[in-house]
Amino acid sequence: MVTQKSALHSPSSVIKISSRAIFFVSDGTGITAETLGKGLLSQFEGINFRQIRFPFVDSPEKAADCLLHIREMREQDGIRPLVIMTMMDPNISAMLRQEDALFLDLFEVFIAPLEKELGVRSAHTVGRSHGHTGSEYANRIAAISFAISHDDGVSDANLKNADVILVGVSRCGKTPTSMYLSMQFGIRAANYPLIPEDFERDRLPDTLLPFRDKVFGLTIAPDQLHRIRQERRPDSSYAAQETCRKEVAAAKRMMQREGIVWFDMTSRSIEEIAVQIMQAINKRNAPGAG
Amino acid sequence: MVTQKSALHSPSSVIKISSRAIFFVSDGTGITAETLGKGLLSQFEGINFRQIRFPFVDSPEKAADCLLHIREMREQDGIRPLVIMTMMDPNISAMLRQEDALFLDLFEVFIAPLEKELGVRSAHTVGRSHGHTGSEYANRIAAISFAISHDDGVSDANLKNADVILVGVSRCGKTPTSMYLSMQFGIRAANYPLIPEDFERDRLPDTLLPFRDKVFGLTIAPDQLHRIRQERRPDSSYAAQETCRKEVAAAKRMMQREGIVWFDMTSRSIEEIAVQIMQAINKRNAPGAG
Repeated sequence: MVTQKSALHSPSSVIKISSRAIFFVSDGTGITAETLGKGLLSQFEGINFRQIRFPFVDSPEKAADCLLHIREMREQDGIRPLVIMTMMDPNISAMLRQEDALFLDLFEVFIAPLEKELGVRSAHTVGRSHGHTGSEYANRIAAISFAISHDDGVSDANLKNADVILVGVSRCGKTPTSMYLSMQFGIRAANYPLIPEDFERDRLPDTLLPFRDKVFGLTIAPDQLHRIRQERRPDSSYAAQETCRKEVAAAKRMMQREGIVWFDMTSRSIEEIAVQIMQAINKRNAPGAG
Repeated sequence: MVTQKSALHSPSSVIKISSRAIFFVSDGTGITAETLGKGLLSQFEGINFRQIRFPFVDSPEKAADCLLHIREMREQDGIRPLVIMTMMDPNISAMLRQEDALFLDLFEVFIAPLEKELGVRSAHTVGRSHGHTGSEYANRIAAISFAISHDDGVSDANLKNADVILVGVSRCGKTPTSMYLSMQFGIRAANYPLIPEDFERDRLPDTLLPFRDKVFGLTIAPDQLHRIRQERRPDSSYAAQETCRKEVAAAKRMMQREGIVWFDMTSRSIEEIAVQIMQAINKRNAPGAG
């Protein structure tokens, strides 16, 4: 067991270090490497990782600089670093691999089976992942613009062009969710606060009535809402436990009566809620839905 | 050659289909699978992919539903689909693999070498990738809020708390870049338009002077700016070729004189520019940097 453990380069078997260095290296932006890398690291509890980004490593000079940093970390920590890569250029990749580290190259692992499956060679070009041309990109940029100009009910000028309208009490998470929907999926997301006046009238704001079919609700546990509002306006009536409890309950009642599907932000990230909303949109737009 | 080609399941060797189905499947949000998947697909030109998302596949029932869709696509297209997965639960993964498709599982491929390297077992829990707790997440949410309230010079109340202030002419890409910086990296990004009045005075807006060390510029080719502005206000003097040419030139002159580092959006995506800005921030904040 001891022999095996030592072969694993586990921190305890080599030297006491406070954290493990992990490099995200790419000849593009490195965002894919970082996104996957963080997902992987989240599966390893109790290990403290120091993340170091090396984007745009697209020349022998930059590779040499990156190599140097990997070496420094290895020598400083007394243990080899992890390197998660998306590297299109096999020559640059080979240069890096001279160093003693654990290299996990996403493209290397997946490009080969895809080439085989598709029966064609891949472009093997650098930085093709984030196109700045094409309708999908233009659509995302337009969606971000839309989301900002339709944030927090600021404008209702163009609600008919919204793909989705999020409603909910103040600070329940509408804004970041709208931004994420626009940025990740190119969805034109407006959002509209439900305020005490709406609860008194006990119906949706008039502006939203024509668009009820694209309205979705967000809700959140009153305790959590209280904590969030406290940070914004400490000890205000706006932030009071009682206010939060009442508003959340009133919003839920209203959404239920109006037949609005809602999502609970309490124990979900904006990414998770955004994906759930995408599913709901697709379901609603599916043939035969209605 | 012919034999080999047919073994590759290449479209031409099997049946004429208009596009190839690719599934992004996950027991979490599937965003990692989709991000990597799109990066991979961009390397295969001339093939038309139909993307189908299956997030939150975390029960045998959902796996059965997903399986059915994969099968339908295979039968409809006469060729097996591609499935890019991040699946923490090996049982669900095994269920899906009953179908005839090309399965590329990111976690399967990378978790094992990481466990070996780190000398610990992974949590193998579902949906851990997008934590909704912890300071990093809270930081991102706060940064999005900051970016929106400091978009387009709307407020300068809190510029001292900005990590970065982007300047540039109207519609050069400041807003989506700010949003991306906040959402992806938790950077508090303000942005401030450079307007004709600034060019007449020929210096930075006074509000920005105390924060010059965190100001970065964006620029864009006048032709492209013209096209973007045309969509917003067709045939206005604001959108005219001559206006765009003059404003871009004046902005560049000003940034050069004020010693502001700038980035050219013309042939770069917001992701690429955002990562370059991150590099510039890190460089500026590095020990010994002036």
